Amino acid sequence: MDEAHTLSATEAAAAIRAGDLSSESLVRGCLARIAAREAEVGAWTHLDETNALAQARALDKAITVGKSPGPLHGIPVGIKDIYDTADMPTQLGSPLHQGRQPDADSGVVELLKEAGAVILGKTVTTEFALSHPGKTRNPHNLKRTPGGSSSGSAAAVADFMAPLSVGSQTVGSIVRPGSFCGIFAYKPTFGSITRRGMNLLSRRLDHVGFYARSVEDLALIGDATMVNDPEDDDMLAQPGRGLMDSLSNLNGFAPKRLAFVRSPVWDQADKDAQRTYEDYTRSLGNIIGDLELPPEFDRALEDHHLILNACLAAVFRREYKETPQQLSDKLKARIAQGIPLSASELVDATDRADERRRLLDRLFADYDAVLTPAAPGEAPADLTTTGNAAFNAIWTQCGVPAVNVPLLKGASGMPLGVQVVAPRGRDAKVLAVSRWLWRRAGNDG
Amino acid sequence: MDEAHTLSATEAAAAIRAGDLSSESLVRGCLARIAAREAEVGAWTHLDETNALAQARALDKAITVGKSPGPLHGIPVGIKDIYDTADMPTQLGSPLHQGRQPDADSGVVELLKEAGAVILGKTVTTEFALSHPGKTRNPHNLKRTPGGSSSGSAAAVADFMAPLSVGSQTVGSIVRPGSFCGIFAYKPTFGSITRRGMNLLSRRLDHVGFYARSVEDLALIGDATMVNDPEDDDMLAQPGRGLMDSLSNLNGFAPKRLAFVRSPVWDQADKDAQRTYEDYTRSLGNIIGDLELPPEFDRALEDHHLILNACLAAVFRREYKETPQQLSDKLKARIAQGIPLSASELVDATDRADERRRLLDRLFADYDAVLTPAAPGEAPADLTTTGNAAFNAIWTQCGVPAVNVPLLKGASGMPLGVQVVAPRGRDAKVLAVSRWLWRRAGNDG
Repeated sequence: MDEAHTLSATEAAAAIRAGDLSSESLVRGCLARIAAREAEVGAWTHLDETNALAQARALDKAITVGKSPGPLHGIPVGIKDIYDTADMPTQLGSPLHQGRQPDADSGVVELLKEAGAVILGKTVTTEFALSHPGKTRNPHNLKRTPGGSSSGSAAAVADFMAPLSVGSQTVGSIVRPGSFCGIFAYKPTFGSITRRGMNLLSRRLDHVGFYARSVEDLALIGDATMVNDPEDDDMLAQPGRGLMDSLSNLNGFAPKRLAFVRSPVWDQADKDAQRTYEDYTRSLGNIIGDLELPPEFDRALEDHHLILNACLAAVFRREYKETPQQLSDKLKARIAQGIPLSASELVDATDRADERRRLLDRLFADYDAVLTPAAPGEAPADLTTTGNAAFNAIWTQCGVPAVNVPLLKGASGMPLGVQVVAPRGRDAKVLAVSRWLWRRAGNDG
Repeated sequence: MDEAHTLSATEAAAAIRAGDLSSESLVRGCLARIAAREAEVGAWTHLDETNALAQARALDKAITVGKSPGPLHGIPVGIKDIYDTADMPTQLGSPLHQGRQPDADSGVVELLKEAGAVILGKTVTTEFALSHPGKTRNPHNLKRTPGGSSSGSAAAVADFMAPLSVGSQTVGSIVRPGSFCGIFAYKPTFGSITRRGMNLLSRRLDHVGFYARSVEDLALIGDATMVNDPEDDDMLAQPGRGLMDSLSNLNGFAPKRLAFVRSPVWDQADKDAQRTYEDYTRSLGNIIGDLELPPEFDRALEDHHLILNACLAAVFRREYKETPQQLSDKLKARIAQGIPLSASELVDATDRADERRRLLDRLFADYDAVLTPAAPGEAPADLTTTGNAAFNAIWTQCGVPAVNVPLLKGASGMPLGVQVVAPRGRDAKVLAVSRWLWRRAGNDG
């Protein structure tokens, strides 16, 4: 099957289970695509064909000897290079961690392996999953950023190098690259996925999430990874709870009440993007109405950066003193902003963030979902930046599920995503509304 | 029944259900005891006999018209004056809140009322549940402190003014007064009880808990109040889960493996108390062995105060500037220590505390429970202090369930408690071991 690498994970997993496709040929297809495109796209920081093919063959063999296949049996997944892998280096996009080889798999990699996934390789992250870009380019236009920090994970899935990848979001690092690269991106409800073995920046803000080319694929990888882990203190007791089943049950679902939220950072969006989002909202007719966030959200972005910068000052204190030349100027600037912050400022900002989180759950409770920009516009034609995460910070801070649906185009024809959010815990509803919007635009899936 | 006020809550509730006792006569018994003793003990900051008797009569009437009684039907409960009550003032032990009347009940009061409890009155708290004492004296010796900050709640139950009371613990405010006053005290697993409508000092450290004169009573009030509340972000999804049933199922239970932990603050205990605890441990024979906490716990107390002082600097910023004369010197000193702390110091201290929490769950996993001092000695003969909370901070910081069992006596014959702890979530086991120790000492219950 020459086009195996273009299959969705759900399709490929079904074909593997049915004996119509081997994991080895799927992995070979992805590796061929990577061989053809990687020099231009630069999505990977570690690839080991031998290792990937060995995993695939072992999984193919397991099926022939009658082992029951896992939900991701034989499916290649790209892993952002901030998640520890026991058999691949984990270098965090920083010269300080060049060649670093962890002893153990991170929790999410462990769960993916248990589900039968092939760990295809490590994808490029910006420096420590913050703002300083890596080598990755946008597959739709090599002069443009793929977004970040999950740059390689987004580009790899967008460019058909892998059907699935793992990213992370502390401000807007999953959803924004999804918008820029024109694929589905999913940041689950806070506490849905273990962060054991992930390079943590901020316990309060860090999320694990995914890229895929279909909504079902997001549910598939979500189900495989949403398992409580007592090592991550912030985890929900029962995360996820059967997204794929919920999505099946909601197959005929159509939303009755949606809201469009411009958010307090609306002015940071391009005029073109503003018009595109407003036109799209209007096209949905009377099931959608405008919703304005109350004043409590005005300072959300400032508080977000305060919390993050305080954490960065703690995390990078030693490197900042001892090896500042190994840190980017962007990172050093953030640490420098974090150092003078007082403990009580952090307590206050965190309290306000927590209050917003509760408030948002109540404000959104009566809507099937809320639509909002995924990014302030198309991917910037500038490889020294990863773009502006302002449209993602509130949803990260409030821990709500957020999906990028690649529905729109900007003025240059580059992708522009619609972000779908809902109260915490309503991940299945967010996925169902995302699928409904996707189908309504004339797509299968 | 003249001695109704000496019944345990479980006994009284059964008598009320059986029609052998009315709530009104029980409340009258408690009020009579209070009338006789309050001038000396000073446990209450607000008492309204009319209100309490009206609640009791309404509950008695509900039974006569066939309403099914709640688990605490007709049982009087004292409420520490940091929990909002809609029909009683809530003054936080501070002149700044004199006469303050909340609009709504706190979550725990709401749940107690739903369970049928009579809210008997508000008990004395130290200033803002910190160190500056109120008027309460130790019922065993009026020259001694009852401990704090839950001073009135502990003294009221110890002095048979109420069978149950609600306290709170941020460092050692439940367990230590339990030890000083010779009653059972219970700080449940962190996140077991909603803190909505409670005056919060530190989200990371604040716990709701209880006093009683029997282990069963702790389970009874725990079951009535352990209900998830989405308004408290730190709550467990399914707290408690049937302590009374678990305790029944464990009726014949005897521990096979206990540990005795001196803890890194052992040197702060009186020599007498050290000997008493060591003798007691030896008396348990070979089911108990010494366990030393690893070096990660050496700085637990320092980190605890760092986290708390940072929060106090945030909480009391305005009062410290505008009305410093309304704050005690003890509180001002803590705020002054909190103000210069940096955000990154707070991040680091919190990370270390969280790491200890995970570590403790693992270290204690193989024991039925761990025994450790509840206090450094008898209640000090000094009414200007509430004693030293050093022996409670680790267990608060680590969020583990902790029970004071009033088993021992100090050199002056004052009570000295054994603290029973276990990994988070093992509340039923802690209660079962506490009951076993209590029975083993020749008591009923």
